[in-house]
Amino acid sequence: MIEEEVLKIIKPTEEDKKGIEKVLEIIRERLNKLDFEVEGSFRKGTWLRQDTDIDVFVFYPKDVGKEYLERNALNDIINRIKDLDYTLAYAEHPYVIVNINNVEVDIVPALRVESGDKAITAVDRTPFHTKYVTSHLDERGKDEVRLLKRFMKGIGVYGAELKVQGFSGYATELLIIYYGNFRKVLEEASKWKHPIKIELTKPMKIFSEPLIIPDPVDPKRNVTAAVSLKNIATFSIAAKYYLKNPSIEFFFPSKKVEEKVKGDVLILRLNLDEKSSEDIVWGQIKRSVNKIERALKQYGFRVIDVQAWGDTNNITIAVQLESKNIGQYYLNIGPQYYSGTIEDFIQKNDNIWVGEDGRLYSIKERKEYDAETIAKKNIVLKVKYNIESYWLQNTEDQQIMKFLRKTPTWLK
Amino acid sequence: MIEEEVLKIIKPTEEDKKGIEKVLEIIRERLNKLDFEVEGSFRKGTWLRQDTDIDVFVFYPKDVGKEYLERNALNDIINRIKDLDYTLAYAEHPYVIVNINNVEVDIVPALRVESGDKAITAVDRTPFHTKYVTSHLDERGKDEVRLLKRFMKGIGVYGAELKVQGFSGYATELLIIYYGNFRKVLEEASKWKHPIKIELTKPMKIFSEPLIIPDPVDPKRNVTAAVSLKNIATFSIAAKYYLKNPSIEFFFPSKKVEEKVKGDVLILRLNLDEKSSEDIVWGQIKRSVNKIERALKQYGFRVIDVQAWGDTNNITIAVQLESKNIGQYYLNIGPQYYSGTIEDFIQKNDNIWVGEDGRLYSIKERKEYDAETIAKKNIVLKVKYNIESYWLQNTEDQQIMKFLRKTPTWLK
Repeated sequence: MIEEEVLKIIKPTEEDKKGIEKVLEIIRERLNKLDFEVEGSFRKGTWLRQDTDIDVFVFYPKDVGKEYLERNALNDIINRIKDLDYTLAYAEHPYVIVNINNVEVDIVPALRVESGDKAITAVDRTPFHTKYVTSHLDERGKDEVRLLKRFMKGIGVYGAELKVQGFSGYATELLIIYYGNFRKVLEEASKWKHPIKIELTKPMKIFSEPLIIPDPVDPKRNVTAAVSLKNIATFSIAAKYYLKNPSIEFFFPSKKVEEKVKGDVLILRLNLDEKSSEDIVWGQIKRSVNKIERALKQYGFRVIDVQAWGDTNNITIAVQLESKNIGQYYLNIGPQYYSGTIEDFIQKNDNIWVGEDGRLYSIKERKEYDAETIAKKNIVLKVKYNIESYWLQNTEDQQIMKFLRKTPTWLK
Repeated sequence: MIEEEVLKIIKPTEEDKKGIEKVLEIIRERLNKLDFEVEGSFRKGTWLRQDTDIDVFVFYPKDVGKEYLERNALNDIINRIKDLDYTLAYAEHPYVIVNINNVEVDIVPALRVESGDKAITAVDRTPFHTKYVTSHLDERGKDEVRLLKRFMKGIGVYGAELKVQGFSGYATELLIIYYGNFRKVLEEASKWKHPIKIELTKPMKIFSEPLIIPDPVDPKRNVTAAVSLKNIATFSIAAKYYLKNPSIEFFFPSKKVEEKVKGDVLILRLNLDEKSSEDIVWGQIKRSVNKIERALKQYGFRVIDVQAWGDTNNITIAVQLESKNIGQYYLNIGPQYYSGTIEDFIQKNDNIWVGEDGRLYSIKERKEYDAETIAKKNIVLKVKYNIESYWLQNTEDQQIMKFLRKTPTWLK
């Protein structure tokens, strides 16, 4: 059976676990006497083999406040690990990433609160998530979570970060807790039509997102608030297709590509100077993609697709148009002959005629008809960047070829 | 005053009249003993100098029927004039055109009926029109008709033929009879908004055309049924502009042209083998123009304008597009992810993806994306023709330059 095969690949062995425990031992020593806890998928037992970060949270009394976390707490942590290979990272507030034997350990300062709904910063809720999940999942349940995570990774809808706008680990755990197992989740998802409500607890707020899973530890929060409709739809379709024809392809998609350039494809290669946090950069990239698409349409281009990919420094935006040649002039539709505005129209326009429908028409010059210029003008990055752009002729770039193919390999 | 100036040009002199009378004398002799009458603008005294045909109608008892008119009557007429320079022409039924001293005389066989509403063929109504007009117009009124005719000719809305779809001579006469004079017609026309009803007599039918002038001699007929909305609108706008700023330009427009080719302009030059009647050819040309425009739009082109001009043998169709390059592929919008039709869509399409809105999309190849081919395929001429076509680069052809300019010279 496919799922058992997949589990053989993704379920960590005792050895994997020991390797991570060894790394954790080092961290535990360093955080001696602090109020710390291991959180995340490793703690919950839902992590994938060779595919996990370790989250270690260090708690401080809630009265110390956010400021304290960001300065004093952070400095204390840094002082304890500064001889190790570490970097600073920023989410809602800063945290430390330590790299030991190629295992990434995130050390996150948080406030100790009484319950999930009392969280002051987003991370304060985490220990309650950990408790909820560990108390609701048995060993088999953990494997079901692993299958669901790998499935979602395979079809590209896993990851709460802005770049993906997909499902968080916690969301996959709640789905398994609610529906019981991987297959059952797919069966239900294949029938989804938004708005979709999955209520392990009664919501304490009216949510407007397409997928609503009120957080059992804080029911005024929707766990899947940031999951895009695109990802919900993709998951639903993939579920339907998997159930009809289960295949390893969904979990580990192959690399089918396409070489044929259909329409006119503009490639924008962005190189960002400064290092910013991924969510900040990708928030701006997503906004740029939307702005580019909207602007091009407004200027009269027929847009097939605009997508972005890359990391935090090197980003590619691909713009696919039916044609880049929309012409310098366009038909301008004016008022009916009996309208009070015809004199104004005639005064302001050139190449005016009366149409068969009794309307005035004119030819107008486009303010802008170069798609490359429009695309570049609508990139809204707040950091400095270099840009290189060209119209695609042919390519051997795997990512571009994937963009050209579009069809997910698990679909067809 | 402009109008007096124009009248000096267009009002026939006694000499003009004598010249035509001399020609008519020849015809009268030939039609000796037949029941004939001079009709048309010459008879009504509303003809324009150096711009008239002479209509001579030969009447037969209504009992002889249409067949008789088309054979026996026509043959009799031909026998009487066959030594002159003549040709045969066809409207609803055949008639004879005789050319004497460069004056064209149309000799039309018709049936003698008791009243206009008893007309069997369209021409049987003519003597009643003549009587109605001559009994309702005085000398000044005739000049007012002349001004209106010349004005309509100048702005291109005069002529009942299909090629123009404009106002007939009879329609201009009725307008003057109804409103009193040229200026008054313009004042009213400048305020028109269709449907426009001008009732010298109560209509005996419900008409659906934009301009409704029930025929005083046959009120179940709309005199202006064939006037296009475009011509009504053009006349209304021209009236408004003339009243604000009277100018000879409206009566005798100058030749302002434009050389700049805006957008992509396809020129189709048609050469018709056989000689057909103008209305038949232009009916087919008008239909072709509409079909070309509709087809191009349907295939995804943005059409600025399609126009045709020429005579009965050499016709030019000009197709102006925003761009001739719309690309070989187009964005195909599919169903929402929860729709029952997604499997069918996925099976039938390639390059499929899920959009941000939860819909499936795909890229499709256009069945046809060459505007020249589409245009040629949609010409519906029933006679044989040769065609030459090319994309306009630059031109010195006056008609094409007029097409490029569009704006009537009297407007701006």
